[in-house]
Amino acid sequence: MSAYHPLTEAEAIEYARRLPDLFHAESELVSREIGDGNLNLVFHISEPSTGRSIILKQALPYAKVVGESWPLTLDRARIESEALMIQESLCPDLVPHVHVYEPDLALTVMQDLSDHVIMRRGLIEGNRYPLFAGHIGRFLAHTLFYTSDLGLNQQEKKERVKRFINPELCKITEDLIFDDPYTDSPNNNVPPAIRDAVGAVWGDGELHLEVAILRQKFLTSAQALLHGDLHTGSIFITQESTKVIDPEFAYYGPMGFDIGAVFANLLLNFAAQEGWSADEASRRDFRAYLTGTIRDTWNNFEREFRRLWDAHGVDRMSRTAGYQDYYMRTLLQDTFGFTGAKMVRRVHGLAQVADINSLTDEAAKERAQRIALSIGTTLIKFNRQASSIEQLIEIADKAVQ
Amino acid sequence: MSAYHPLTEAEAIEYARRLPDLFHAESELVSREIGDGNLNLVFHISEPSTGRSIILKQALPYAKVVGESWPLTLDRARIESEALMIQESLCPDLVPHVHVYEPDLALTVMQDLSDHVIMRRGLIEGNRYPLFAGHIGRFLAHTLFYTSDLGLNQQEKKERVKRFINPELCKITEDLIFDDPYTDSPNNNVPPAIRDAVGAVWGDGELHLEVAILRQKFLTSAQALLHGDLHTGSIFITQESTKVIDPEFAYYGPMGFDIGAVFANLLLNFAAQEGWSADEASRRDFRAYLTGTIRDTWNNFEREFRRLWDAHGVDRMSRTAGYQDYYMRTLLQDTFGFTGAKMVRRVHGLAQVADINSLTDEAAKERAQRIALSIGTTLIKFNRQASSIEQLIEIADKAVQ
Repeated sequence: MSAYHPLTEAEAIEYARRLPDLFHAESELVSREIGDGNLNLVFHISEPSTGRSIILKQALPYAKVVGESWPLTLDRARIESEALMIQESLCPDLVPHVHVYEPDLALTVMQDLSDHVIMRRGLIEGNRYPLFAGHIGRFLAHTLFYTSDLGLNQQEKKERVKRFINPELCKITEDLIFDDPYTDSPNNNVPPAIRDAVGAVWGDGELHLEVAILRQKFLTSAQALLHGDLHTGSIFITQESTKVIDPEFAYYGPMGFDIGAVFANLLLNFAAQEGWSADEASRRDFRAYLTGTIRDTWNNFEREFRRLWDAHGVDRMSRTAGYQDYYMRTLLQDTFGFTGAKMVRRVHGLAQVADINSLTDEAAKERAQRIALSIGTTLIKFNRQASSIEQLIEIADKAVQ
Repeated sequence: MSAYHPLTEAEAIEYARRLPDLFHAESELVSREIGDGNLNLVFHISEPSTGRSIILKQALPYAKVVGESWPLTLDRARIESEALMIQESLCPDLVPHVHVYEPDLALTVMQDLSDHVIMRRGLIEGNRYPLFAGHIGRFLAHTLFYTSDLGLNQQEKKERVKRFINPELCKITEDLIFDDPYTDSPNNNVPPAIRDAVGAVWGDGELHLEVAILRQKFLTSAQALLHGDLHTGSIFITQESTKVIDPEFAYYGPMGFDIGAVFANLLLNFAAQEGWSADEASRRDFRAYLTGTIRDTWNNFEREFRRLWDAHGVDRMSRTAGYQDYYMRTLLQDTFGFTGAKMVRRVHGLAQVADINSLTDEAAKERAQRIALSIGTTLIKFNRQASSIEQLIEIADKAVQ
């Protein structure tokens, strides 16, 4: 079973049974394949007699998106499992535990999180997660600080950069986030109702300049090991627990890209409240919860990142007076820009979000799309002037006034 | 002879004789070891009967600097030979031809350039090189453009970044250029006569902030494949020919670092004219030649870089209106900063330059050191406001008024 081939359910069970210290040797094991089959096989293996369960995630050598299939390296399974293990070493409570990574099979055996829900789904259902801002702020602070030149020996960091060179997955981001949405590309999926607003995006030179600058940062700025795809569909959540999953896009990039992914997806849900909230009062209230979560996330992140810097910085020059403030302000500015870029691509790009697309009231959906585009483009154009997280919240609030 | 060991002269001759198409099988060959023995063995192998000759350069597994010896990876020989071959593919006339790279021996067989002189030596002797600005401007434009995301497929570029991860050599730069000179480090070599000026550098918080920002760019900005050590001691020259050698510090970094290395070393010679020029008129004249060379180099570089961008850019987003101007201005600003950083470290850091240090008139040497420090620190502090190469020349001229 060591040469690569997609596992059958029987093989997945057989593999799981041979793992040490997980299941009883003689137990009956049950497998359910719960992946969407587009990128990975995901087997949920459980032992009914004890209630124990694990996940086997196996990369497939191709990706299927909207019917098309293209080859995709199995090396992303290594990148994902190594990123998970680094994240686990830094925030053990915030990622699934990796039991085993099996390179020949592109297979990762990890903790089952079936008791959690995908955060995007939870938000669509109107749930609130009061611990999330603290959890994700800490996740961002620790994973970004300790993989950067600030918190990691600079020579070790370079070896990490090498291990996380991730051309194929980065190309998806470069095209779908930083290129296609700004031109009439066949990869776009333009909702007919907002054709006018999308046309304005395609014709906005000031916007394109900022996107080009953000794209350059994505291409060249090896600041920290990013998750690389940190939207609310990559977060498993409960009232008490937050688990960040699926870091197959991990690579060394600009820190603001991860923070912006979180904010963008909270703001897409903010826009989608046009359709989800029952009335104006509850809409205002849920939106205030979402912007409050953004504020708390940034503030928790910033406080913890500065604390780590002061207590555990490894670079003498990084203790230069004024440098930390300069760095945090640049990081905030990047966060504004990447938040905007991650929003715009979800309105009329190839891959969109259920927050907006599962709205059944067409008028509400259109309003949500226009709000998301407006917030996204405003953040992108404003990014290099940003000086406070409150400005991001003001921009969002203003778009729904 | 395939396992690594430092070659003897007899072995070097034997190795050269077996290379195809270089020497006659029966000829007498003569070897001279012409390296300084600190980092590499360099054998000059010649065939007196024909006048043919080649260079065998072999990396040693250690570095010796001011008496100390520390281990150094042989992988730098691979990096050097691969960088040379990439540069040769882009500007065949501006680097030595590589005949063979032999990984097991960390050995590169390359074109003999004994008919050239080291440019630092040539400038100290008062020679002028009217073609240099055109040559080096083209070298910089082609090597930086075609290895960046502007001129190279972005996925191929990422594989290049991986091949040129160069932790040990980068660490030398990070310490000796971006750290030690700004604090009372034992690695410094402070000339007693300028102890006051060096003390001012150590106490200048505004300066340190800019150096910290430049250091971050060196650590994180993977813009292009740099030569990494492009001072006038890495350039062989004649009136007609320019050959850039020794790219063992090559890695993916900020473009301005290479351009700044050239300018810094021209300006160190500019400062050293305190001692080299016979009188005030010839001093003014040679300095005008040096600043003219900087102006022409930048202008040639910028014109050619923009031409390549317009004609051969591979990235749709890079053709966004305004982006090229933004990019070139940022690049100019980086160039100011790195020029300054490369000057300061040569005044009181570990490794200094013969332009200044071989002056025998102590008063002239002191004046040269103070001028170099003044230009260097001013450029560093001004870097983020720079908008024209003329400002760099004004800063230099003002320091000697």
